[in-house]
Amino acid sequence: MDTAAQRDLIPDRRERRRQSAAHRFTALGGVAALSLNALSSLAYGPEAMVAVLVTVGASGLDYTLPVAIAVTVLLLVVVWSLRRAIGVFPDGGGSYAIARREFGRGPGLIAAAAAVLDQVLTVALGLAVGTAVLGSVFPIVADHRLVTALIALAALTALNLFGIAESAAVLLVPTVLYIGVIAAIVVAGLLRGEPVAEIGTPADLHDLPGVIGPWVLLRALAAGGSTLTGLEVVADHAPDFRPPAARRARRTELMLGLLLAVLLLGIAKDIAAHQVFPRDGVTILAQLAAAACGTGILFHAAGLVIAGTLGLAANTGFAGLPRLLSRLARDRRMPYLFALRAERPVFRYAVAALAILAALALACSNARVELLLPIYAIAVFVGFTVTQLGSVRHWVDEHGPRWRWKVLLAGLGAIATGGGAIVLFLAEFASTTWVLLIVAPALMLLFDRTEHYYREVANHLGLGTEIPVPQLDSAKKTIVVVPIAAVSWLTRRALEAARRMGDEVHPIAVDVDAELTASLRERWRAWNPGVELRVLDSPCERLVEPIAEYADSLSSADTMVIVLLPRIESRRRRYRLLHNQRAPLIMSTLTGRTDAIAATITFHVD
Amino acid sequence: MDTAAQRDLIPDRRERRRQSAAHRFTALGGVAALSLNALSSLAYGPEAMVAVLVTVGASGLDYTLPVAIAVTVLLLVVVWSLRRAIGVFPDGGGSYAIARREFGRGPGLIAAAAAVLDQVLTVALGLAVGTAVLGSVFPIVADHRLVTALIALAALTALNLFGIAESAAVLLVPTVLYIGVIAAIVVAGLLRGEPVAEIGTPADLHDLPGVIGPWVLLRALAAGGSTLTGLEVVADHAPDFRPPAARRARRTELMLGLLLAVLLLGIAKDIAAHQVFPRDGVTILAQLAAAACGTGILFHAAGLVIAGTLGLAANTGFAGLPRLLSRLARDRRMPYLFALRAERPVFRYAVAALAILAALALACSNARVELLLPIYAIAVFVGFTVTQLGSVRHWVDEHGPRWRWKVLLAGLGAIATGGGAIVLFLAEFASTTWVLLIVAPALMLLFDRTEHYYREVANHLGLGTEIPVPQLDSAKKTIVVVPIAAVSWLTRRALEAARRMGDEVHPIAVDVDAELTASLRERWRAWNPGVELRVLDSPCERLVEPIAEYADSLSSADTMVIVLLPRIESRRRRYRLLHNQRAPLIMSTLTGRTDAIAATITFHVD
Repeated sequence: MDTAAQRDLIPDRRERRRQSAAHRFTALGGVAALSLNALSSLAYGPEAMVAVLVTVGASGLDYTLPVAIAVTVLLLVVVWSLRRAIGVFPDGGGSYAIARREFGRGPGLIAAAAAVLDQVLTVALGLAVGTAVLGSVFPIVADHRLVTALIALAALTALNLFGIAESAAVLLVPTVLYIGVIAAIVVAGLLRGEPVAEIGTPADLHDLPGVIGPWVLLRALAAGGSTLTGLEVVADHAPDFRPPAARRARRTELMLGLLLAVLLLGIAKDIAAHQVFPRDGVTILAQLAAAACGTGILFHAAGLVIAGTLGLAANTGFAGLPRLLSRLARDRRMPYLFALRAERPVFRYAVAALAILAALALACSNARVELLLPIYAIAVFVGFTVTQLGSVRHWVDEHGPRWRWKVLLAGLGAIATGGGAIVLFLAEFASTTWVLLIVAPALMLLFDRTEHYYREVANHLGLGTEIPVPQLDSAKKTIVVVPIAAVSWLTRRALEAARRMGDEVHPIAVDVDAELTASLRERWRAWNPGVELRVLDSPCERLVEPIAEYADSLSSADTMVIVLLPRIESRRRRYRLLHNQRAPLIMSTLTGRTDAIAATITFHVD
Repeated sequence: MDTAAQRDLIPDRRERRRQSAAHRFTALGGVAALSLNALSSLAYGPEAMVAVLVTVGASGLDYTLPVAIAVTVLLLVVVWSLRRAIGVFPDGGGSYAIARREFGRGPGLIAAAAAVLDQVLTVALGLAVGTAVLGSVFPIVADHRLVTALIALAALTALNLFGIAESAAVLLVPTVLYIGVIAAIVVAGLLRGEPVAEIGTPADLHDLPGVIGPWVLLRALAAGGSTLTGLEVVADHAPDFRPPAARRARRTELMLGLLLAVLLLGIAKDIAAHQVFPRDGVTILAQLAAAACGTGILFHAAGLVIAGTLGLAANTGFAGLPRLLSRLARDRRMPYLFALRAERPVFRYAVAALAILAALALACSNARVELLLPIYAIAVFVGFTVTQLGSVRHWVDEHGPRWRWKVLLAGLGAIATGGGAIVLFLAEFASTTWVLLIVAPALMLLFDRTEHYYREVANHLGLGTEIPVPQLDSAKKTIVVVPIAAVSWLTRRALEAARRMGDEVHPIAVDVDAELTASLRERWRAWNPGVELRVLDSPCERLVEPIAEYADSLSSADTMVIVLLPRIESRRRRYRLLHNQRAPLIMSTLTGRTDAIAATITFHVD
């Protein structure tokens, strides 16, 4: 355990975070606030599973129910593991925090890359699936899927940039609506005996002779396993529950898991009962909805509810990535700025970064679910595996009650989810998952180089080494250079401040414009403030260079130079553009090239 | 004459500018460097004239030569006026400088708006005409004119953003080539007796009965007058010639005027001789070229030369607008930053602004020459009128030798160009010039409000009033607040500097992360630098707010607060992103909300 990891365990810290959390969940509130992500996977998990099964022909559909039952078993194992993990890691924080704490550097980097992909694809996939559902209901959307998804992304981004913290109360209604719609579709499908209404073009299925092979079954299982994505959200947010937090979070995880299992099995039963085929441009869920309620107004309403919910589920990525970046930044694996996610501009950087990455993912995949889903599922599965292996490691170290059984079950779960990731990676390598070979190492390299660089800087700064106590060397002289543009109240204030700051004050004027300089000189003489105005030559009419050069020429071992720049700031925002640009220009040149202290004194005008 | 205008007359200043000018022109060199803009108008001026004449039918073409002769007379008058203006205003600077100096505020604002439109449309129109010429030769371009023009604009913008100051030497070859091509087309056209090769679809001309009316003739004269655009460039750049500058500039203006007159008459003679009609998608110049050399390789080469030259002519706007903005900024009619056009970032802002405006003009007009040309010609004509009226005013005030004759001729010229602007405005009002009713007042309002605001600020600052001499109040205390993140060499340097800058040093730590704060506290106690570390609470994990609040709470009438922020800067550019963002965040909040002096001390790492 390194010191960075210990940080999360300090009771005082946990107590404070708990107090400052704006909203804390009850077990049921947790379902409302944290389940959208998991429940939304019902819109693509069963579909992905069936899409694999029918690769061998229509007869593949016979395996729908058995494979769905296997997926459900896996789901229950993962839910059990996650509930245990909440007990072991009550501070949440996701698989990255667990990997960093239990396994150290290498696995930490892998988990970090997986977590970043998870958040980016939560957004991209959510929008892609939402668009697909919408396209099933409104054909016009189907013709412009990428554009629709990008517009939705832009809307979500704007929402996150300019407002509205999402709260559990807001999510309650859509969650209940969504569960109601899915449940209604499942129940109506099971009750009706008639065949499914024909919408969309049926896919061309060639029945292959012989029985279905184990590779296809494994692939179907892994694809169906994508229904499990989103279950990790509850465990990640364990500290956000009301005390006793861990117990409430565990209860939420169980409720969510059971709900998901029931709905999954219901959908699978429906698919098997009605022999629903993947059709061009119409999702299986839409077909089931059509089977349940026809293609009238109810059908369109159901489509809108499901698509809207998927949009909200996508939105969780916008809360997740800033949190993740903040965690990475505290470990110095991303620019340290991201650690300040409570600062609005910083949060906006993270939102903008996420929007760009998600737009890239959507554009590269042309918003096709079948290209985005495998990568997303792999990222989530890697997270599950890390979490379960972390629990195993913990129990092996701790030897608590019945630890062998726990290790066995969590180990089996880790093998299943890890295996699922490998199966998906191999099965979809040619079409999409080869991208991971580029993206994952690139992300890991980024984290690694950032960490390496910050460590170098820490060495330069002498962090952790013996630093001599600061000394006041009275032989040293301080010169304050004050660039002057005119004789004004601001100039007066600046000179007064400069005199207080240093031993010598050097007012300087840069001769950019001979006439202005001459009149300034004259004004200065008449004013006679007690210090001489020095005029710097500027052969190329440049302002910044001469100041930097002058500051540089003064500074030496026994002279400290401060450049005090008078600046004006308007209280009215629209006038900001009329000031403020010279100061940054001068400051950046100054601090980039000299050791001078760069200071600004601000005069506020209305 | 106000003081701002006198500035340009100070001999010392002129001498210095002359010495610092990177390249100064001989009379012939001036033709090479400054004539492209004027000569390029041969590609659209005659065309615009003919387009008006044929509105009454094919018989309108009979008036080509008479109208062209009238245009040539106008041209000679304008050239005479401009040559005189060079003598009166040897500092150049264009019609805006003259209007400001001779007429004051109102006319100055009008001239400023016209000058901005002139520069923006120099770029937009040059590219639109160049694309039209290219489209006449390569039909594929004709189908994608807007896109071609925008691509060319992007290329020019990139060229200006990232490099390459244009020099007279670079422009010599294309200018000579262009003159050669136009002259060859004219001469070959005059020699050949055969009819013009049929390219493009002839326009549908309905011959109207009766003679051509005076309104059409006036319109044709005004449209043909657009051939004069670009003549002002030589006068504007008069100070850039080698001494005796005014004489050399006058000689250049004369040479350019005569060259333009000869080529214009030649083209008009060709048009009349071959009865060249405007054709859909093929410019008259291209038809004349086809008449001269067929539609083979020479035809394509001529098209490329002309289009390339038009692109180079468009490029002059990129040198012109930064110069104009700088002049406006010195008069406080644009953000003062633009006055520093020698600073690379400032130049880039101007280039970017121009690119955006030109792109807007191209997009709104769909790159159609007939929509852009009237506005451009009006802007240039307003400039001519202002320049000539300025000369008139000068002579009336001065009563020099033969001043009555000069006033008469320049006055006639002013009436002709002013009238031309009015004719164009009325004739094209429905199709395009109504835009001026919005754009010109908007620009004038922008200049006016900016000037007004700066004057308000100047009042706040007490510019020009009696400012008391700065006083050192020894009862006043200076507190230096130093935000601390760790104990390091940088911290030590910051504390040493802080002690030199003020009476009290307050090292502060913001408690964003309890564990980090605790370890920093401990380190600090062990280090014991002689000042106590103050820990600021941060309930919402924010960094910036607590610092600003603390600084604010300290400052009072007898306490000056300096916030000294230690920052790190890497010498390697790619690592810059890893530091540097916290400082601006803190600085902007600090200077926006408090009167504290914001200072940074920089630690350079490799």
